[in-house]
Amino acid sequence: MLAAARATFADRGFDGATIRGIATAAGVDPALVHHYFGSKDQLFLAAVEAPADPDELLPEVLAADRDVLGAAVVRMALRVWDGPAKPAGLALIRSAVGSEWTAKLLREFLVSKVLRRVVSTLGFDPDERAARASLVASQLIGMVMARYVLRLEPLASAAPESVVAAIGPTVQRYLTGDVVLPAP
Amino acid sequence: MLAAARATFADRGFDGATIRGIATAAGVDPALVHHYFGSKDQLFLAAVEAPADPDELLPEVLAADRDVLGAAVVRMALRVWDGPAKPAGLALIRSAVGSEWTAKLLREFLVSKVLRRVVSTLGFDPDERAARASLVASQLIGMVMARYVLRLEPLASAAPESVVAAIGPTVQRYLTGDVVLPAP
Repeated sequence: MLAAARATFADRGFDGATIRGIATAAGVDPALVHHYFGSKDQLFLAAVEAPADPDELLPEVLAADRDVLGAAVVRMALRVWDGPAKPAGLALIRSAVGSEWTAKLLREFLVSKVLRRVVSTLGFDPDERAARASLVASQLIGMVMARYVLRLEPLASAAPESVVAAIGPTVQRYLTGDVVLPAP
Repeated sequence: MLAAARATFADRGFDGATIRGIATAAGVDPALVHHYFGSKDQLFLAAVEAPADPDELLPEVLAADRDVLGAAVVRMALRVWDGPAKPAGLALIRSAVGSEWTAKLLREFLVSKVLRRVVSTLGFDPDERAARASLVASQLIGMVMARYVLRLEPLASAAPESVVAAIGPTVQRYLTGDVVLPAP
């Protein structure tokens, strides 16, 4: 079932995939998928082997005032990565860099479960939301790579709040600031 | 010889490694290492399997005015990655994410061959240089991951100059702007 879920989510994205379609691909009854995984959300998190559940973490981020949202996003990312989710997070990145298929899943996870929800509160049109979200992702993924994978100093050993103070303004600019949007 | 070079550079860093030490580790005469690889620089690039030679590319970046250095750095990174170096670059990242040893080599390459030289022109003290360099790295690595590995849209298909306009100001702030430095 998980293999069928991974293939379907990678192929059709989170929105395009259905429990029924995944059950058919796995050759089982949809009720069985529901029984084991509950909702499509839960199945997706299991398929991605997500290191943390955005449904639990994002409400706190989204409660932040608009002008400190960048800092709140960076703070949450550091809390997840400085905590018990780090090994699973590293495994997910490793797998995404090595396989186009997992890269699609990780992209889908970031976009549909994290970034879209953070930028959806800001009131831009869909194209601008996607552009701002991809810029936010570029800084957050790079922070994770530099701090936890390459262990570049002093970023690797820095206190979380000093990282929030350094990188938060970048994420804030990408979220709400004056920024030229990437376009073809 | 390359295996000995990789082990030595990963272990001691670029500055700490010597051709003599690498030759000893490989059980060959230092003259043979010189014969095959020329300088320590060339040997290091071969050991890292560097996708591009910073000695050829950096002079153009370093010729930029201080207040457009961020844009020049982003522009060069995109030129290298949109060009023929991409497969080798992806292979290097893949290998670095999978192996702590290659991660050390890639870090050493970025720090000693690229970042240190970019920030060295700006006149900060060594601690501040390292802090600014690690922030620059966090944005550049993330841009590469988001655009070329995860292929997040619209960043993945955006025209290089629109990416320079979006991300250049971030790199500029990390290089010369008002920024809280990451610290323990």
